[in-house]
Amino acid sequence: MTEQRSQTGAPLHHVVAAKQFTRELVSALFARAQELQAQLPGPPRRELEGRIMATLFYEPSTRTRLSFESAMLRLGGQVVSTENARDFSSAIKGETLEDSIRIVGGYADCIVLRHPEEGAAKRAAAISPVPVINAGDGPGEHPTQALLDLYTIATEVGRLDHIRLVLVGDLANGRTVHSLSQLLSMYPGLHATLVAPDRLRMSPNLVAQLLAGGAEVEETTDLLAAVENADVVYQTRIQTERMVEPWTADEAELSRFRITEETMRGLPASAIVMHPLPRVGEIDPAVDDDPRAAYFRQARNGVPVRMALLSTVLGR
Amino acid sequence: MTEQRSQTGAPLHHVVAAKQFTRELVSALFARAQELQAQLPGPPRRELEGRIMATLFYEPSTRTRLSFESAMLRLGGQVVSTENARDFSSAIKGETLEDSIRIVGGYADCIVLRHPEEGAAKRAAAISPVPVINAGDGPGEHPTQALLDLYTIATEVGRLDHIRLVLVGDLANGRTVHSLSQLLSMYPGLHATLVAPDRLRMSPNLVAQLLAGGAEVEETTDLLAAVENADVVYQTRIQTERMVEPWTADEAELSRFRITEETMRGLPASAIVMHPLPRVGEIDPAVDDDPRAAYFRQARNGVPVRMALLSTVLGR
Amino acid sequence: MTEQRSQTGAPLHHVVAAKQFTRELVSALFARAQELQAQLPGPPRRELEGRIMATLFYEPSTRTRLSFESAMLRLGGQVVSTENARDFSSAIKGETLEDSIRIVGGYADCIVLRHPEEGAAKRAAAISPVPVINAGDGPGEHPTQALLDLYTIATEVGRLDHIRLVLVGDLANGRTVHSLSQLLSMYPGLHATLVAPDRLRMSPNLVAQLLAGGAEVEETTDLLAAVENADVVYQTRIQTERMVEPWTADEAELSRFRITEETMRGLPASAIVMHPLPRVGEIDPAVDDDPRAAYFRQARNGVPVRMALLSTVLGR
Repeated sequence: MTEQRSQTGAPLHHVVAAKQFTRELVSALFARAQELQAQLPGPPRRELEGRIMATLFYEPSTRTRLSFESAMLRLGGQVVSTENARDFSSAIKGETLEDSIRIVGGYADCIVLRHPEEGAAKRAAAISPVPVINAGDGPGEHPTQALLDLYTIATEVGRLDHIRLVLVGDLANGRTVHSLSQLLSMYPGLHATLVAPDRLRMSPNLVAQLLAGGAEVEETTDLLAAVENADVVYQTRIQTERMVEPWTADEAELSRFRITEETMRGLPASAIVMHPLPRVGEIDPAVDDDPRAAYFRQARNGVPVRMALLSTVLGR
Repeated sequence: MTEQRSQTGAPLHHVVAAKQFTRELVSALFARAQELQAQLPGPPRRELEGRIMATLFYEPSTRTRLSFESAMLRLGGQVVSTENARDFSSAIKGETLEDSIRIVGGYADCIVLRHPEEGAAKRAAAISPVPVINAGDGPGEHPTQALLDLYTIATEVGRLDHIRLVLVGDLANGRTVHSLSQLLSMYPGLHATLVAPDRLRMSPNLVAQLLAGGAEVEETTDLLAAVENADVVYQTRIQTERMVEPWTADEAELSRFRITEETMRGLPASAIVMHPLPRVGEIDPAVDDDPRAAYFRQARNGVPVRMALLSTVLGR
Repeated sequence: MTEQRSQTGAPLHHVVAAKQFTRELVSALFARAQELQAQLPGPPRRELEGRIMATLFYEPSTRTRLSFESAMLRLGGQVVSTENARDFSSAIKGETLEDSIRIVGGYADCIVLRHPEEGAAKRAAAISPVPVINAGDGPGEHPTQALLDLYTIATEVGRLDHIRLVLVGDLANGRTVHSLSQLLSMYPGLHATLVAPDRLRMSPNLVAQLLAGGAEVEETTDLLAAVENADVVYQTRIQTERMVEPWTADEAELSRFRITEETMRGLPASAIVMHPLPRVGEIDPAVDDDPRAAYFRQARNGVPVRMALLSTVLGR
């Protein structure tokens, strides 16, 4: 297994799972990301000039792809890209993921992989001649999303310990919620309030992990009460497309988990609202102009965080 | 509303509608475009090095996209690109245009937007954190096409005043024809001859605008007579895909609006034939080698005109 | 006809067919490719800075596209790209290949064309204002694949004369096999053993060409016997998608043409196994770790070979 847990700033190679990010590595990456962000857009950088990143996407994810490509270009690097990587493994040509990775690894200096199957990134890393960065493997991991979420909390709230986190929405299927709560539980004093429709509650298994990591966990369906002492309200989308059994959500039930101007009135002045985006109604657009609405800044943070990651993985 | 009407070379921000181009701005842009074109391909330029343009296309338009990308790269800039922007707003993920623009505006320094709905560019400009350039919004506007058309007349005919313009084909649905005639009517002495099938005549509203702008307008179905004194014959494609009611064109009727070698025999030696392309039979390929056939030079002019625009919008 | 047969290092213009590569040109290109490969990834190169390559793909071929793009970027050049070039010629917009080439030729300094119809590259070259490089035209030619195959033999076997070549699989439809055997027959002493299912034997016409070029040719269905004295075993995929009559291959029959660990035991220690990839079972993955399995190195060779070609075609 080629996956690495790096120590204190030691270079990363493959980036497959959020659990690779130790506190020391997070610290080093965030210091670098802040430094890079302070200089954006700024004069052209050349530190990755002559280096090529391949984006190999077996399912479309335009936001994630553009964010990675922007990060690479901002460092002076170059990009080759495919949004149709399924062509590699079509009924006609039937190539394995492993073969595709070996081939693309001969064209590029790192591979950003998006794949619908859990474990795809780990399989790719096991045979790739160049670093593989997991940009989401189905219900599995999306470690760079978790990292930019954590970065957003660090820069907006100003600390990572003793965070009062309210997780709202689909806590059963949302891999971002899982990865983020996992990362946050590395820091002391995490208090997580879980606010989900009954059918979409966090799995007992993950709740147990949070508790084992030292977090306090409570569950409620009362969003208004939950946000009153929050530092961070993390809202998620109901990912019906990832559900095994089809589910037609009950509008009235869902509306109780929506963030509106009323919710914002109950939220502390120093708290923030996050969302991995896209949203489809879970947050009322009337909230967008509230300075505590951090979700577009969160999306924007993807670029400096991925710049820090790419410069660590590919830096000479 | 963030749309701007710039004065004498003052920097542009959003480029949404052809009416933003004043005579002074046109003059400055064309001077810049000619200077840039004279140096093509030439040694590498670096004036936009470190800057990123995003192309966000909700419907495919390969010509327009490649022309913009080429312009950006020729200036030393970089590009992130999507031809499948509909994924942003798919049934599954359902994101609004506004949200997509805010997100992409966090990744890039300007957004080139193509969208099937009229008014999309204006909506985007109203909330975008970076300049938006309209690359066509359905039946609405396509201002950079109008600009390169005007540039083609300026460089090929040598002037923009007292132009005898013959507009041929679909004058009801063709947004290029509308924008170009609007731009040309800023200059004195425009004489427009409209040659269209009865069903595809220019709207009375637009004819009235041309007259109000000081142009002389006449309508005919006799193409051969119309071209006799022309400076510019602007041919368009019958855009059946944009028609509200389906229409199966009558071949015999359409053939009267086709440019053939016979048409060229009636055309003055100094006149030119233009077409926004693609063509699907409106101009006989036998005409291509005639030096007055300017449509491929017109397409090529897209690059220096868009370079001038991008360097004005993004220049430091 | 604008196609050229270049002499001793003289610059190439269009690259349409494998027969354009004379021994002198091959020699010059391979010397350049080896020099470039030795420096990969290495410090950034700038020799094609400011130059733009357009990839115009009318059918997807992600490997070929990424390999060309990587080659161009490694030389400091830039790329504009379309995987959906069919949009150019859709039912709605119906543009001819010739018109598309003329337009894209106004945006880029060379065009890499992939097209499903035989002869498309030649048609494109006949009217293109910039060099056209054929990246596969249906059952026709794929000259850069033939060139990288030849390069793989030259660098792995160490010579191009007196090669004992075993061609296995679909010898009726595989254009790579045709082009490679054609190129190899420029060198003295070629011995070709053809191993194919009865239905997929090489055409008598091509066999006659090989014989006329001075090669020895034998045919067999006994793969194990054939590989015993081989220098190169070139395995191909059964391209059912290019067959005129549908064919459901007989698994038992096909298994006799598969390369397995047993085949490798019969293969000389100095021989290599090649495959244009993708493979769909013709080579057992258990063979991948054998140092004689050259197919991934072969794919990787696409980059320096295409770099050599691009720098010859576009070099100032």
